[in-house]
Amino acid sequence: MPLPNSGDKFREECGVMGVCGHPEAAKLVYLGLYALQHRGQESAGIVSSGDGAFRSHKGMGQVPEIFTEPVLEPLSGPLAVGHTRYSTAGDTSLLNAQPLVVDCNKGLLALAHNGNLVNALEIRRRLEQRGSIFQTTSDTEVILHLIAESRSRSLAEALSEALRQVEGAYSIVLMTRDRMFAVRDPRGFRPLSLGRLGDAVVFASETCAFDLIGARYEGEVEPGEMAVADAGGLTRVAFSEPAERRQCIFEHVYFSRPDSVVFGRPVHLSREKLGRLLAREAPADADIVVPVPDSGLAAALGYAGESGLSLKFGLIRNHYIGRTFIEPQQAIRDFSVRLKLNPVRDILDGQRVVLVDDSIVRGTTSRKIVRMIREAGARQVHLRVSCPPTISPCFYGVDPPTERELIAAKHTIEQIRQFVNADSLAYLSLEGLREAVGDPEGTRYCDACYTGKYPTEPVNLELETGLARRRG
Amino acid sequence: MPLPNSGDKFREECGVMGVCGHPEAAKLVYLGLYALQHRGQESAGIVSSGDGAFRSHKGMGQVPEIFTEPVLEPLSGPLAVGHTRYSTAGDTSLLNAQPLVVDCNKGLLALAHNGNLVNALEIRRRLEQRGSIFQTTSDTEVILHLIAESRSRSLAEALSEALRQVEGAYSIVLMTRDRMFAVRDPRGFRPLSLGRLGDAVVFASETCAFDLIGARYEGEVEPGEMAVADAGGLTRVAFSEPAERRQCIFEHVYFSRPDSVVFGRPVHLSREKLGRLLAREAPADADIVVPVPDSGLAAALGYAGESGLSLKFGLIRNHYIGRTFIEPQQAIRDFSVRLKLNPVRDILDGQRVVLVDDSIVRGTTSRKIVRMIREAGARQVHLRVSCPPTISPCFYGVDPPTERELIAAKHTIEQIRQFVNADSLAYLSLEGLREAVGDPEGTRYCDACYTGKYPTEPVNLELETGLARRRG
Amino acid sequence: MPLPNSGDKFREECGVMGVCGHPEAAKLVYLGLYALQHRGQESAGIVSSGDGAFRSHKGMGQVPEIFTEPVLEPLSGPLAVGHTRYSTAGDTSLLNAQPLVVDCNKGLLALAHNGNLVNALEIRRRLEQRGSIFQTTSDTEVILHLIAESRSRSLAEALSEALRQVEGAYSIVLMTRDRMFAVRDPRGFRPLSLGRLGDAVVFASETCAFDLIGARYEGEVEPGEMAVADAGGLTRVAFSEPAERRQCIFEHVYFSRPDSVVFGRPVHLSREKLGRLLAREAPADADIVVPVPDSGLAAALGYAGESGLSLKFGLIRNHYIGRTFIEPQQAIRDFSVRLKLNPVRDILDGQRVVLVDDSIVRGTTSRKIVRMIREAGARQVHLRVSCPPTISPCFYGVDPPTERELIAAKHTIEQIRQFVNADSLAYLSLEGLREAVGDPEGTRYCDACYTGKYPTEPVNLELETGLARRRG
Amino acid sequence: MPLPNSGDKFREECGVMGVCGHPEAAKLVYLGLYALQHRGQESAGIVSSGDGAFRSHKGMGQVPEIFTEPVLEPLSGPLAVGHTRYSTAGDTSLLNAQPLVVDCNKGLLALAHNGNLVNALEIRRRLEQRGSIFQTTSDTEVILHLIAESRSRSLAEALSEALRQVEGAYSIVLMTRDRMFAVRDPRGFRPLSLGRLGDAVVFASETCAFDLIGARYEGEVEPGEMAVADAGGLTRVAFSEPAERRQCIFEHVYFSRPDSVVFGRPVHLSREKLGRLLAREAPADADIVVPVPDSGLAAALGYAGESGLSLKFGLIRNHYIGRTFIEPQQAIRDFSVRLKLNPVRDILDGQRVVLVDDSIVRGTTSRKIVRMIREAGARQVHLRVSCPPTISPCFYGVDPPTERELIAAKHTIEQIRQFVNADSLAYLSLEGLREAVGDPEGTRYCDACYTGKYPTEPVNLELETGLARRRG
Repeated sequence: MPLPNSGDKFREECGVMGVCGHPEAAKLVYLGLYALQHRGQESAGIVSSGDGAFRSHKGMGQVPEIFTEPVLEPLSGPLAVGHTRYSTAGDTSLLNAQPLVVDCNKGLLALAHNGNLVNALEIRRRLEQRGSIFQTTSDTEVILHLIAESRSRSLAEALSEALRQVEGAYSIVLMTRDRMFAVRDPRGFRPLSLGRLGDAVVFASETCAFDLIGARYEGEVEPGEMAVADAGGLTRVAFSEPAERRQCIFEHVYFSRPDSVVFGRPVHLSREKLGRLLAREAPADADIVVPVPDSGLAAALGYAGESGLSLKFGLIRNHYIGRTFIEPQQAIRDFSVRLKLNPVRDILDGQRVVLVDDSIVRGTTSRKIVRMIREAGARQVHLRVSCPPTISPCFYGVDPPTERELIAAKHTIEQIRQFVNADSLAYLSLEGLREAVGDPEGTRYCDACYTGKYPTEPVNLELETGLARRRG
Repeated sequence: MPLPNSGDKFREECGVMGVCGHPEAAKLVYLGLYALQHRGQESAGIVSSGDGAFRSHKGMGQVPEIFTEPVLEPLSGPLAVGHTRYSTAGDTSLLNAQPLVVDCNKGLLALAHNGNLVNALEIRRRLEQRGSIFQTTSDTEVILHLIAESRSRSLAEALSEALRQVEGAYSIVLMTRDRMFAVRDPRGFRPLSLGRLGDAVVFASETCAFDLIGARYEGEVEPGEMAVADAGGLTRVAFSEPAERRQCIFEHVYFSRPDSVVFGRPVHLSREKLGRLLAREAPADADIVVPVPDSGLAAALGYAGESGLSLKFGLIRNHYIGRTFIEPQQAIRDFSVRLKLNPVRDILDGQRVVLVDDSIVRGTTSRKIVRMIREAGARQVHLRVSCPPTISPCFYGVDPPTERELIAAKHTIEQIRQFVNADSLAYLSLEGLREAVGDPEGTRYCDACYTGKYPTEPVNLELETGLARRRG
Repeated sequence: MPLPNSGDKFREECGVMGVCGHPEAAKLVYLGLYALQHRGQESAGIVSSGDGAFRSHKGMGQVPEIFTEPVLEPLSGPLAVGHTRYSTAGDTSLLNAQPLVVDCNKGLLALAHNGNLVNALEIRRRLEQRGSIFQTTSDTEVILHLIAESRSRSLAEALSEALRQVEGAYSIVLMTRDRMFAVRDPRGFRPLSLGRLGDAVVFASETCAFDLIGARYEGEVEPGEMAVADAGGLTRVAFSEPAERRQCIFEHVYFSRPDSVVFGRPVHLSREKLGRLLAREAPADADIVVPVPDSGLAAALGYAGESGLSLKFGLIRNHYIGRTFIEPQQAIRDFSVRLKLNPVRDILDGQRVVLVDDSIVRGTTSRKIVRMIREAGARQVHLRVSCPPTISPCFYGVDPPTERELIAAKHTIEQIRQFVNADSLAYLSLEGLREAVGDPEGTRYCDACYTGKYPTEPVNLELETGLARRRG
Repeated sequence: MPLPNSGDKFREECGVMGVCGHPEAAKLVYLGLYALQHRGQESAGIVSSGDGAFRSHKGMGQVPEIFTEPVLEPLSGPLAVGHTRYSTAGDTSLLNAQPLVVDCNKGLLALAHNGNLVNALEIRRRLEQRGSIFQTTSDTEVILHLIAESRSRSLAEALSEALRQVEGAYSIVLMTRDRMFAVRDPRGFRPLSLGRLGDAVVFASETCAFDLIGARYEGEVEPGEMAVADAGGLTRVAFSEPAERRQCIFEHVYFSRPDSVVFGRPVHLSREKLGRLLAREAPADADIVVPVPDSGLAAALGYAGESGLSLKFGLIRNHYIGRTFIEPQQAIRDFSVRLKLNPVRDILDGQRVVLVDDSIVRGTTSRKIVRMIREAGARQVHLRVSCPPTISPCFYGVDPPTERELIAAKHTIEQIRQFVNADSLAYLSLEGLREAVGDPEGTRYCDACYTGKYPTEPVNLELETGLARRRG
C-alpha cells in the first residue's frame, strides 16, 4: 500500500519464509526471518503447524527481540511459515501483522504475502457487499476470502481460482495443517526462492535465508507457478497462463542483500556492475571514490575499479542505532545524518570526492551528506547515483515516498544538483541499469519507478477503512 | 466456553463498558473496566470512535498495566467501548481479546460481549460453508458475521436479525462510527446496566463502574431490549418476544461486587441474607464465626448476626499477590492457600469455629483451609456454604470446572465433609438461595449450576478449531 | 528519615528477614519479604551467601515483580538476608536499597536495617573528616563504617562497639560469609522476631513471615540483645546495658499485620480492644458501624461488639490498584478516594453511621470519605478514631507527614470535626491506647507521636548530601 | 581487569565522556557515549550536576536503550560525566557500573575511569586495614578513597596525591558540584581528548564523540596532565613527572573507530597503512582480497591498493544481531560465525583469496571463517593479519583472553596456519606495526601484548573479594 514514508529510502515491505518437513521448522523460519530482517524491521510473525493445530506468535520489533526462547519453544510442528514487514506510517500496529491465520471451509490457513495487490479494494468492496467481514486493512486478507468463497473442494484449485482474480504483485507462502503452498504472481514482481535442507522443502524471499540455515538453493518459484510441499514431497504446477516477466529491478539496485541470489542472479554482481557502468557513463575528474555506506559500497567498488580512482572509506557508519533518539534542544546541524554517518576529515580534507550512493529520494539526506563532506574539507563533491532518477511511485510492494516527495519527479538533474549542492551529479542510464542486471533488452524487469510505465492497469489507492491506529 | 479452570472458584468471563457522547469517552471506559476488573483479569481492550475512525488497544494483564497514559491518550473521540476478560486455560492470548473490530457492509463495528452462545458452533459451520473466514475461536465472532450477512440496510434491523438467530447468553455493547447499541438476550442471563453522566449515556456490566465515574444508574437494559444511543439521545426498543427471565443467580452469590446493583438488586443485600438464612437453616454449636475473605465476608456477617455468635477475622488475606509465585523445592504444606490466607492463631486457638465460604468447587482448597484452621488450634470446624451444592457446569458465560471436577456432582454432603475434614458441613438450600435474592418462587433466576435444569436446549461444546495457542 | 510523605497514612519504612542454615535460604527470605510487603512496597533486595561469595539482587517494585525465577535462582547458599522498604519522596531510587553489601577488614558484610538512627549525621561528619567515603544517603551506612573502624578483631565485638556509638531505632540483620547476627536497639523501638524452621534459624520483623514458610515463632530478639546464628547453632548475648523499653505503639495501631505477633503480643487482640475501648469512651447514638477498610476492620468489629450496633461493610475496597492512575481532565470529585473505596448506597442510605478509622493524618482523606458516605444517603456520620490525635512526627523509622501536615498538631478536635464535616468526632484516649496494647502504666511503649515526648535526645534532621535523585 | 573473555576479540573496557559548561550537558554526554558505544556495550551511566546536587542514572545494555527521554530529562545541570563499559565475565552487573558517585570530605564526587590500575589490590588491602569499606570490586574505587584520605584541603592537590600513589593506566574524568577534572596517567596508556563546543569544555576517549555533537577537537589531555574546567575556564597543569609514553598500540590496530583521532593520529591512516605494509611484507599469489568486516576493512583496502589485487566484499556482515540467539538443536555448522558473516559464493567460487583480518585470538573464529570461504568455492585462502602475533595478556584496561587462550602464545605460525586451515598465514611484523602508527623507533607505544614487555612492575591479579554476582 503506497503510504507516506518518513525516511529517505524506498522500503521493502515484506520478507516471507516457509519450512515444510523439518522437526524444528519454526526455529529455521526464525533464522530465515533474521536473515531477511532488512526486508521489514517493524513486526514479524511465525505460525507453526503440528498435531492438527496451529501455534503462532507475532510482535512489534526486530526478529531477535520478538522471538525469545520461551516464545519460540511452543511453536512446535514440522511446518512453519513466517513473515517480516514494515508497517506503514499511520499503522505501526500488530493489526496487519502476518502471517494471517483463519479458519474456514478449507480448514485452517496461515498466509504470508510479499507484494501488493492493485485490485484489492474493488474485490473487498464486492466481498463486503455479499456479507464478508474484514479484520485488517491489508490487501492480503481478500485472498483468504476468495479461497473460502471458492466452490472447489480442493484447496489447490480454490487457491488458483483466488489468484486468478487478483491483480498485482504477490509472492505467497500458504500453510495448512499438513501442506505448504508457495506461489508467485505471473509477472514475478517479487522474488521467491525454493531450497532443500535434507528432506525438508524451504521457501524464502532471498537466498541469504538459505545460507544461514545451511539449505541448498534450487532455483526460483517461477512466475505463475504453484509449488506444493507435503509429506509426499514437492509438486510444481502452473496456475496461470504465462505473462511477461516484470521482476522488480530495485531488488538488485537496493533492496536485496548483496549476498543473495535474486531472480536467479547474484545481487552483488549487479551492484558492482552498476558502479562500473556508472564510471563509464559519468566519469569525474576527482581524487577518491567514497561510498555512502553500507548500500553504496558495492557500486563504489565498481566505480573505483573502472575509473582507476582510489576507494576510500570517508564516511563511517554507526551500527549502534536505537529505535528512538533524543536530540538536544539546541539542535545539532545535520543531526539525523550524523547519527548514522561520520565523515573522516583526514581522508576527505583537500580532496575531490566522487560520492557514490544507490538512490536519491527526497534529496534532503544527500544534501546533508554533501554538506558534511564539504565541512570535513573536501574541495569538490561529485555525486554519482547507481540508478536512473526515480520519478514514479511503486504499487507492487514497495513503500516509497509519494510522487510529490520524489525530487526527480518534478526537477531536472541540474536542479537536483543545485539542491544537494554537488559540484556535479550524474545518474546511471536506464540502459546501463538494464545491462547491469543482465537484461539489456529490458524484457524481464519492471522499471516503472524510473519510467512510469506500469505493467498493470491503473491501480486503486490505499484501503481507507477507518480501521486506523490499532495496537496490541 | 466451558473450558477447564485450574483455580478453585467459578470465574466470570467478561465485563463490558460503553460510553456514548463524552469528550473523554475512552478514559471513562478505562475507569469502568478498572471497576469491573474482578470480571476478567487476563486481558482488556478499549476501542474509541471519533472523526470517522476507530482507535483501539488491547493487551494482556490488568487494566492499569495495559492502559498507560501514552496508550490511552490516542484513543480519542466521544464514543468508546471496552471489555475485560479471562482467557480460558489453553488460550492465554490476545487472539480472542475483545472488543472485536471489523469492517463490513454495515461499516466499522466494534463489539464487546459478556455471555456465551450455545449455538455458535452450528452457526459457524453454516457460515464457513458459505465461505466466511474466522479469525478467532470465540463464539462472539459469529454475531458480526450474521450482522454482515443480513440484507437489512439498517444496522438496528441487521443486529436484531442476527440476535434472533443466536441462542444463549449475551449482554453486548456494539459501537459504530457514531452510535452505540446495548442489547441483552431475552432471558437476561448476564447483567447490563444503563446510566447517565451529564448528557452522556453509559452502559456497564455492574453499577460499580458507574460509581467510580460519578454516573447515575438508571436501571437495567431489559432482557430482549435494544438500547441505542447517539447524538440525538437514547431510544429503547424490544428486539425480541419476551421470554422467561433467567438471570444468573451466581452473580449474587459470588461474581458481582457487593457494592453493585445487579438485576436491579443490591448485591450486598442478597449476600448478607444468604448468611442469615444459612444460620437459620444450619446453626452450629460453636464459639465464633470466621469468614473466608474476601468473598465470604458478607455472608459471615449475616450468619453471625442471625446466630448471635461473634464474628472474628480469623483468616487474614494477603493483598500483594503477584502473577506467578516461586515455591521452594522443599514444599511448604498448603502453600498455595497460605500465600493468600493466614490463620490467626490467637483468635482460633481452642475455639469451635463456624467457617463461612461462598462455594465449594473441587473441595481441595476448603480442605486446606480447614487444615490450616485446625493447625492454628481450632477445636472444631463447622463449614457453612452460602449456596447449594454446585452439581452442573454453566454454559452461559461462566468458566467453571468441568462436571468431573465438581465435588458435589458425584459425592454426598457427608462424603464432602469427610474429604474437607470438617466437624460438620452444611449448604444453603435452594429455597433459601431463592429467598435471599428476592425470588422465592424461583421464576426469575437461572439456577442450572445447582439443579442441572438448563433454560436452553442442550448446548454444543467448545469451538475446537485448531486455532490454538496464538499469542501477540 | 523524616521526609515528606504524600499519602495520608503513616508509612513503615522497612521490613527485614534473615535465614541461616537452610539450603533454600534465599527462597525463604523471598517468601518472608512477600509476607512483609506492607512494611515497604517500593524496593526490595536479597543477598545470599554460599561457597564464600555473596550473590544479590535489588530492584524497584513489589517483591513478586522483582524476584522472578531467573533472578532468584542464582541466589544460592545456606544464608540469606532480605529487606523491603519505602523510598522517601525525593529518593525513588535503588541508591539506598538494602541490604547494603560491603567488603572491609571484617570481611564481606550484608546488612538490613529497620529503624532510624538519630545521630547518624554527626557520626557521618566525623567519619568523612577522617577520610571515609559514602555511597548512600542512608543512616544505615554509618554502621558499616563503624564496624570497619573498630580495632576489635572479632566481628561480634566490632558490631557491639559500633552499636554503642549509634543512638536511635534499629532492628538489624547482618550477614557474613557464614554467620548471621540479629540485633535490636536497647529500647526496642522496632520489632524483630526469632524463629526456627527445622535446624535453620530465622529472623523477621513480624511473625506473619514465619507463618508463610512454616517456621515456629520462638520469641523476640530482646532489646539490647545480639543473637548470632551459624553452623554451630544459636547464641544470644546482651551487647548493651538494659534501657527502658520504648516499643513503637503504632505497630499495634496500624503498621503490623493483624495476624502477626509483635512485641510478643498478637496485633489483632490489641486492635479489637482499641475498638472496644473506643466504644466505651466515645459511644454514638447511631444505627450502624462501618469500618474504613482494611485497616479499620478490627477496631470496627470491636466497636460494634461493645456498642451492640450492627457492623456493616458500607465501604468496599478495590483491590486491583495499579501504580499510577489516569484521571480524566474533567476531574471526578474525590477521585483518589473513589479509586480505593466505594460506598454502598443501599447500606448507608438513611442511616446514622459510626465510621471507624485507625488514624487521621492530614484530614483530607477523612473529609472525602465522610462526603462520599453522606452522598450515599447517610443521615449522620460519627467519626471514631482508634488512637489519640497524632501531633508529633516520628524519628524512629516511620515516614510520616511533617508536623505542619499533621492536622491534629495545630487544630482542636472540634476544628478537625468541622474540617472533615462529621456530626461528631472522637479519638481514643492515651490511657485507652495503653490499655489496649497491654501496657496500662505506659512503661513499655513509645508514644511520642501522640505526646511529643521523645525517648532520645533531640534528633538531627535528614542527611542532606546532594546525592539526590540517583536511579539505577 | 584480566578476566576470561568468551568472545574471540580483545575488548576495550571503557569509554569516558565529560561536558562542562553547557545547559544540556547530560544530553551531550549521552550522544558522546553513543558514539563511544564500541568501547563498552554492556552498561552505561551518566551523572549530571546542577543546583548543588548530583542526578544520575546507570543501566545495563546499550546507550539508546538505557537513556530514554524520561530517564535523561531529569539529569539537569551544566556539568555531566558519562561512562560506558563492558562488564567482565562473572560480573554482568550494575555493581561496578560507572561513574562512581560518593560523598566525602572533599564533597560530592563522580568519577569515570578508562584503564586499569595494577597496584589497586595492595592499596585496597591497606585501606581496608585502616577501616575503609568497599562497595565495588572495581580498581577505580581506591582512587576515591585516596582522595578522601588526603589531608590536602584542595581537591586538585588531593587528586594529585591520590594519583601519585596509583600505578597503571587511567584516563579519568572527575566531576564535583561545579568543576570537572580530566587526568591521564604519566605513560598515557589510554586516550583522552579535549574539545570545545562554544564556551563548553568537553572530554572524550575518542574524537568521534566530538564529531557527533559538533565539538572542536583541541588535542589530547597529555600524559601526566590534569585539566580542570569550571565557570572560569580551563586550566592545565602537570600533576606528575614526565615518564616514557606508552600509548596502547592496539587502539590503532582494532579498538578505536577509524573516524577517530587517537593519540593525535587519525586511526584510519594507521589502519590502511597496516594493510599496505602487510602487503609488502607478506604478498600472496592470489586473485582477490577479501576483508573480514567491519574491522578488517581498512587494512584490506590498503592491502589491495598495495598489491594491485582486487578488493571484493566476499563476506557480508549481518547488522541486525540481537543480544541472544536461539540455535536449533540439530546444530548448524559454524552457526555463531554464520549469524554475523555470510560468504558470497559468486565472488569466492574458484578464487584464490587473500583474507585480511585485524587479529587472531583463539583461532577458532578464523578457522570457521576459512572453512566457510572454502565451502563457498574458494580454491585457496591466504590469511593475513594486520598486526603481530598476540602472545601476552594486557593489564592496562583491555579485557583479553588469558594467556592460555591466546593461540599465538604457545604455537608457531605454522601450527596456527594448520589449525585455521589456511593455505598460507602471515602476520605483520612489529617493525611494520610501529611504522604504521608513526612510531618507527618504538618509543611512544605500549606493545606488551605482542612482546610481553610490560612498562610497569609485575602486576597484581584481579580483586577477588567474593562480592560476586550482584545485580540491580
